[in-house]
Amino acid sequence: MHCARACRGLISRRSHTVLRAWRLQSRAAAAGPDLSGIYPPIATPFTAREEVDAEKLEENLQKYAEVPFKGLVVQGSNGEYPYLTAAERVEVVRTVRRSLPPGRLLMAGSGCESTRATVQLTEKMASAGADAALVVTPSFYKGKMDSRALIRHFTKVADSSPVPVVLYSVPANTGLDLPLEAVVELSQHPNIRGLKDSGGDITRIGLIVHKTKMEDFQVLAGSAGFLMAAYCVGAVGGVCALANVLGRELCELERLCRSGRWDEARVLQQRLIEPNAAVTRKLGVPALKQAMEWFGFHGGACRSPLQPLTEAETQQLRRDFSSNGWL
Amino acid sequence: MHCARACRGLISRRSHTVLRAWRLQSRAAAAGPDLSGIYPPIATPFTAREEVDAEKLEENLQKYAEVPFKGLVVQGSNGEYPYLTAAERVEVVRTVRRSLPPGRLLMAGSGCESTRATVQLTEKMASAGADAALVVTPSFYKGKMDSRALIRHFTKVADSSPVPVVLYSVPANTGLDLPLEAVVELSQHPNIRGLKDSGGDITRIGLIVHKTKMEDFQVLAGSAGFLMAAYCVGAVGGVCALANVLGRELCELERLCRSGRWDEARVLQQRLIEPNAAVTRKLGVPALKQAMEWFGFHGGACRSPLQPLTEAETQQLRRDFSSNGWL
Amino acid sequence: MHCARACRGLISRRSHTVLRAWRLQSRAAAAGPDLSGIYPPIATPFTAREEVDAEKLEENLQKYAEVPFKGLVVQGSNGEYPYLTAAERVEVVRTVRRSLPPGRLLMAGSGCESTRATVQLTEKMASAGADAALVVTPSFYKGKMDSRALIRHFTKVADSSPVPVVLYSVPANTGLDLPLEAVVELSQHPNIRGLKDSGGDITRIGLIVHKTKMEDFQVLAGSAGFLMAAYCVGAVGGVCALANVLGRELCELERLCRSGRWDEARVLQQRLIEPNAAVTRKLGVPALKQAMEWFGFHGGACRSPLQPLTEAETQQLRRDFSSNGWL
Amino acid sequence: MHCARACRGLISRRSHTVLRAWRLQSRAAAAGPDLSGIYPPIATPFTAREEVDAEKLEENLQKYAEVPFKGLVVQGSNGEYPYLTAAERVEVVRTVRRSLPPGRLLMAGSGCESTRATVQLTEKMASAGADAALVVTPSFYKGKMDSRALIRHFTKVADSSPVPVVLYSVPANTGLDLPLEAVVELSQHPNIRGLKDSGGDITRIGLIVHKTKMEDFQVLAGSAGFLMAAYCVGAVGGVCALANVLGRELCELERLCRSGRWDEARVLQQRLIEPNAAVTRKLGVPALKQAMEWFGFHGGACRSPLQPLTEAETQQLRRDFSSNGWL
Repeated sequence: MHCARACRGLISRRSHTVLRAWRLQSRAAAAGPDLSGIYPPIATPFTAREEVDAEKLEENLQKYAEVPFKGLVVQGSNGEYPYLTAAERVEVVRTVRRSLPPGRLLMAGSGCESTRATVQLTEKMASAGADAALVVTPSFYKGKMDSRALIRHFTKVADSSPVPVVLYSVPANTGLDLPLEAVVELSQHPNIRGLKDSGGDITRIGLIVHKTKMEDFQVLAGSAGFLMAAYCVGAVGGVCALANVLGRELCELERLCRSGRWDEARVLQQRLIEPNAAVTRKLGVPALKQAMEWFGFHGGACRSPLQPLTEAETQQLRRDFSSNGWL
Repeated sequence: MHCARACRGLISRRSHTVLRAWRLQSRAAAAGPDLSGIYPPIATPFTAREEVDAEKLEENLQKYAEVPFKGLVVQGSNGEYPYLTAAERVEVVRTVRRSLPPGRLLMAGSGCESTRATVQLTEKMASAGADAALVVTPSFYKGKMDSRALIRHFTKVADSSPVPVVLYSVPANTGLDLPLEAVVELSQHPNIRGLKDSGGDITRIGLIVHKTKMEDFQVLAGSAGFLMAAYCVGAVGGVCALANVLGRELCELERLCRSGRWDEARVLQQRLIEPNAAVTRKLGVPALKQAMEWFGFHGGACRSPLQPLTEAETQQLRRDFSSNGWL
Repeated sequence: MHCARACRGLISRRSHTVLRAWRLQSRAAAAGPDLSGIYPPIATPFTAREEVDAEKLEENLQKYAEVPFKGLVVQGSNGEYPYLTAAERVEVVRTVRRSLPPGRLLMAGSGCESTRATVQLTEKMASAGADAALVVTPSFYKGKMDSRALIRHFTKVADSSPVPVVLYSVPANTGLDLPLEAVVELSQHPNIRGLKDSGGDITRIGLIVHKTKMEDFQVLAGSAGFLMAAYCVGAVGGVCALANVLGRELCELERLCRSGRWDEARVLQQRLIEPNAAVTRKLGVPALKQAMEWFGFHGGACRSPLQPLTEAETQQLRRDFSSNGWL
Repeated sequence: MHCARACRGLISRRSHTVLRAWRLQSRAAAAGPDLSGIYPPIATPFTAREEVDAEKLEENLQKYAEVPFKGLVVQGSNGEYPYLTAAERVEVVRTVRRSLPPGRLLMAGSGCESTRATVQLTEKMASAGADAALVVTPSFYKGKMDSRALIRHFTKVADSSPVPVVLYSVPANTGLDLPLEAVVELSQHPNIRGLKDSGGDITRIGLIVHKTKMEDFQVLAGSAGFLMAAYCVGAVGGVCALANVLGRELCELERLCRSGRWDEARVLQQRLIEPNAAVTRKLGVPALKQAMEWFGFHGGACRSPLQPLTEAETQQLRRDFSSNGWL
């Protein structure tokens, strides 16, 4: 709290004042797009030589166009963004933009370790057609990434971004949880639209919803494992790796939650936990891509050092889908 | 999974067979009591000389009698059980039994580090009037407390216990999460009735509900912070430190969840997260006892080495209640 | 630092003043025994019915009498103390006292979770013949066991203890490292003689030696894996599970370190790391007891819930000794 | 172990065979340079606009030329490499090469998240004049970075690298410790020369030295806090942030350790622990750069999101140097 309060003074007040005034005039516009709904954080298909395979990507996109997603997340963690150059990241976004049906949101991962690189990539992503920028916490110098540093980082990025910013906290990869006090502070920034929380601490998610309720700020669950619980405590949607595979089912789960049919939702949610864990925490992106193949999408291999699944892992993956009736 | 399967053979099959047959004959009886509802894990008041203060305890109990709790948990973590002798633990249970209105469940914490001590204390707790035994995971030799060891431990305890056993996983204190595969295996034991899960991983809680649904097995949320979310994914109640202070409010939250009034529930749940965090994770039992004083109960000091709150901590605690409208 | 300074005022100043004056008069006496040397933290043999087996214990003690140990640690972690009653813990110490050759130190584990229980058990241990008390950090309420609480706890115990106190930090079991600032503060207590540090952070050990060098305070390595390095940075000995098995070799390693024969020491140290890891971190007390059997001591089974090694674990254990030339 | 053995088959056997044959012919050459000695992992000075300040860098280099370092590490963690573009990283190396006195080793950090990017950057670093490549573990997909993946990654990089490779494990930043079994396996690669271990687990370091002693493989301590202990167990030098500030003192510590003057070494080592902790774990690169200013070097600000020290942090930093007699 302390820190947040101390920092408030540091944030470029002018841009805030201007933007907030503008927001009061045209609230809907300032608020940015409504984020609510389900998004697959799409995988990046590669050729045998580990080059981005635009053709296969487009074939996947055609299939996703038939699923009632709110939009797509491009170059999130499941897109193997740390393995792509900045140019490749932008090019993938451009490719997706071309294929995206009207009305769908394109959220592009533009986070880098340094503030300056993030600012630059966010601008490029906007130029390439992104509707919003999903900005992951920088994390290499974890010990120094306190609220003060993170508030400054995200504020600078949001100040200069041509499109709304969505904060992204994914401790399983970064070893860092965006502190609650930083989220609350940043939620007041007129160009910060929401948070994708992949940590899965439902108490924290509930508290974030509670403490940001006066702002135009929305919370998205970062995984299908706790999607229903997140809706229950006030989240408005989910960015779920599993949506690459079982997209329709996740959209159905969303529909049940939003229409208050919790008993039906519970049954569906429970069958999704193990498949979801398999393609995320347990076996990761290689498993996600393997499952995509089983369900008619192009998955294929990851860039090295991510390795193909072993035979035992593949069996485990299959079991996690089949024992829940999906295969 | 592996391990669980390997272990199944090790578990005293005979007792299982006998008990299961008996269970089939009289399922309701075998299933043990319905655990659903809210329980305060009551604090233990001490005199100035750190002796158990039975008088103050009874005065608290009289007040709790007016709240629609399902029952009480006695000698759980908030009862400072590691600071009491076995004799004191039993005596407190006996005191509570005398005051408890009919129809209320008395769940007594009887877990010790060794299996033999747990077996003995469980028997004493039953003799002293406990309706069920809440058995925490042994945890000192964490590295060796794998599923194999824990399944054996809980099976032996449940085999010999005169009352139904409720498993208790509280990683914040023990540094150990009862593995999911062990929970699933143990849920099949006819004298194991449920799990109190204080870890708060809602994905795990949902999966436990899913994988034990064929058994007479119930899951209780171990903290008020994720009570609503736990109901949402299939838990049937909660053992919540905060119920010592805001018992009526937690019972009201339960009522809203069980009657499907989720929007009202959400508003109430959100206001409870910070007070709950204050009396558990952030400031612990001394804060719980301080808050009890504010709300008309006897709290008082803890046994050493637990220290009274500092002035700054007391202010923080007050803020966490007042900013949510409780003080 | 802060906290330590703040706490200093809280500590019973009178006892300090009296004891310190007395210490100045007869420094050697006040300082308590010189702790330097090697100690096995002896295992507790049990009968088939899990009762303490005094006979086997005595046979082990006769063999240890021939090894140039400085003394023995009784009822440390490897003695399965959390599985013994207070009465059993005292009785084992009494048994050891009877067999101990003159001139050897008997250090008895007397730590409990509550301050009052620790005070009482420490007195009983002294009456039973302990020369010093090894007092582990209380740890159940980890979140509240900050420097303030721990300084108070150890100060009260040391104030009343008839024998010198040795602090004991073993984070692998307790999930808690005694904070450096607390160690430094406590090192000034006239009845606190040293620290057994089992965490193995050699930077911390070096810093503790540095910051306590003005006091009569000695540091013992809590494991054979970093014994040589600990000597190198200023420790004076070790309490090492492996000394139950390879006692002569550890005494030889001590001799090499103390006489500055570091090259020879290094060769010996390196051959001890894997056997040590096997009987501690990797496979625990059951492995220690199995290895004791191989080397002519009584090990036997542990109390439940500790399980006997699986066949695969036994082979792993054998490999860790044989690949280093010990079997 | 398992995994390592399983993987061995996967590694490009041909390159191994060829390189190993060549190594047998000219062992000294194949072994690559002797790494023993002290290296500062140099900081990167920036202008007020956060551009690399080549001028200030060169002035620092002139001062370092007078200290008896073995060489320099360029674009390690203290060089803020995650905040530089690949082009900037190479350019800094080129600048350093120009200024480096003959006989000094230039070790360049060339690790990236993907194998392909690491291969490319390593080649560029060699072209820019690096004598060896320091390759950090990729870590974003931690859950999948097991021994199999890491062995493959480093093998591919070493197979193609024009200069010897030094492995780099820095869990405080990456959340990942290069597994011992992977180190042992990789130590057999003819183009992998050693390991910089910044984790500080001295038991692990001793074991690595032990298990790689048949190879041309050298271990460097990754921090000044455990430099003496690392020498004691068989390391041959250190890459220490603190060498940017107290370079002469660290070289003196090295000299004392290598000439067996352990008592003098201990006194010096102990005075270096707190300053070292301050510029690494506690206060990070901003503190390192601040201390550099105090000692006559160009430090300056870091790239954002790293923030300048607060006033309280600056005082803490000063205290950690002054209380040990360095300021």
